[in-house]
Amino acid sequence: MSVLIVGSTALDSIKTPKAENPRLLGGSASHAAVAASFFAPVKLVGVVGNDFPARYVKLYRKHGIDLAGLQIEEGKTFHWSGEYEVNMNRRRTLATELGVFEKFTPSLPDTHKSTPYLLLANIAPALQHHVLDQMWKPKFVIADTMDLWLNIALEDLLRLLKRVDAFVLNDSEAHQLTQCDNTIEAARRIHKMGPRNVIIKKGEHGSLLSNREGLFLCPAYPLRKVVDPTGAGDSFVGGLMGHLASTRGPAEKNLRRAMIHGSVVASFCCEGFGLTRTTRVARRDIQRRVKELEALARF
Amino acid sequence: MSVLIVGSTALDSIKTPKAENPRLLGGSASHAAVAASFFAPVKLVGVVGNDFPARYVKLYRKHGIDLAGLQIEEGKTFHWSGEYEVNMNRRRTLATELGVFEKFTPSLPDTHKSTPYLLLANIAPALQHHVLDQMWKPKFVIADTMDLWLNIALEDLLRLLKRVDAFVLNDSEAHQLTQCDNTIEAARRIHKMGPRNVIIKKGEHGSLLSNREGLFLCPAYPLRKVVDPTGAGDSFVGGLMGHLASTRGPAEKNLRRAMIHGSVVASFCCEGFGLTRTTRVARRDIQRRVKELEALARF
Repeated sequence: MSVLIVGSTALDSIKTPKAENPRLLGGSASHAAVAASFFAPVKLVGVVGNDFPARYVKLYRKHGIDLAGLQIEEGKTFHWSGEYEVNMNRRRTLATELGVFEKFTPSLPDTHKSTPYLLLANIAPALQHHVLDQMWKPKFVIADTMDLWLNIALEDLLRLLKRVDAFVLNDSEAHQLTQCDNTIEAARRIHKMGPRNVIIKKGEHGSLLSNREGLFLCPAYPLRKVVDPTGAGDSFVGGLMGHLASTRGPAEKNLRRAMIHGSVVASFCCEGFGLTRTTRVARRDIQRRVKELEALARF
Repeated sequence: MSVLIVGSTALDSIKTPKAENPRLLGGSASHAAVAASFFAPVKLVGVVGNDFPARYVKLYRKHGIDLAGLQIEEGKTFHWSGEYEVNMNRRRTLATELGVFEKFTPSLPDTHKSTPYLLLANIAPALQHHVLDQMWKPKFVIADTMDLWLNIALEDLLRLLKRVDAFVLNDSEAHQLTQCDNTIEAARRIHKMGPRNVIIKKGEHGSLLSNREGLFLCPAYPLRKVVDPTGAGDSFVGGLMGHLASTRGPAEKNLRRAMIHGSVVASFCCEGFGLTRTTRVARRDIQRRVKELEALARF
């Protein structure tokens, strides 16, 4: 079944201790959509300016991504630039130019409103609500977020938590949201805020799922070299949602393997700048790493 | 088969944000010996002063630990006091009084020299060498360490790495030793220094084994509350070694399940101050958590 993904579509200029890459295709929706496209048909909802390079439209299309929901507006595409520290775990935003993204109001084409799987990738919670309002009974809704929204849009976010099937955030965000330093206890507290599936991302340490089936400790695929982790979290949740949409039966039962697949796509994301590595991945590369993860976790 | 464990035997005064506990039984050898005792007969080699409380000798005995190698010297027992920060991942040493430990020279009773499994728990590398020198062809040798020895006894430590079957250290120590921030790459570099099994501890994020069988990502048992993590690493390596000594066949094949058992004992250690929780654990409690870890890691 198909996946509708709403989020940011951006141009990212990324500095790491080793290199610098200007105006890469980025944004939460871009990473998530490419990641999901390995497993299911994807419809992207977002906005770009008329400076958006045609080669990136081509790239989306190469991945079979439906662009009927991609608005092209007069003005500049959202531009983010950031810098990673030596250990690649911390990043610093150098500049954020919102451009056409500032006035983005996602409006869904009718063909999109009955999409069964909805991924509200990282974007302002008000916009996530706005998309959810337009949907006709989606089968499964996942929302991702970032620390910014905890700081400036907490009420919207808390309302959103009551409307989604799964909520994804990283460990430091979980600690901030719950005022609790213990990740397991934080997951329990987030359940009380609404979502019956809580997924906490821990970067190189993998991720954690908490739901009625119990806890699941999802490993990260071990990488000897990380080139650029930008978008890894978006790739994880996109791959997760794409894989979930490709399975049958109750989502709760399928979430573990979906997370494994998301984790593998995220590992490829980290091996290149922006989407450069992810877009060269074949389905068999993913299957090979899934098999490797099975072997790495066996005892 | 039996396990010989050499390391520190100490009295620990531990402050956490929530409580304070003076003169608990501590030290790397104490934690490791109690942890190993759940799976195999243990011989402890260490030194205490004549102030060492009789109740702690009783506690060792309750766990069936052979104390023929425990020297009791005129003077004070090694006393460590430390304080944990709010998130329990960082600790600060408040005071270290070496006492009789300062002049400790481990001398093995003849009955101990042919013990098949040797655990060189955290202690000065020179003392680890000294014990190894007295042994008659041990079947499997594991060495643990701490950052202090990387700073003040690196040459001894590097020589030791060529003499052991497995080397255990935590992730920040692995990064320091290899000058490499990537844990997977650090493991590869440590292999080149000698040991064919490298085990990197990552606290709440579990641990990593690298050997000829490939990589193994060992999960940590998820705890909703950590009371005191002091000795968790020693408990992990002790439980690991004890379990390994209880198995047959090539150690390489058995290390994964041994690590799982070490991880479970370490989880109990974190649930009480010092050894207070660990010493109340029954073998069936361990088995239950091992089963839970199997379910938590399944996908």
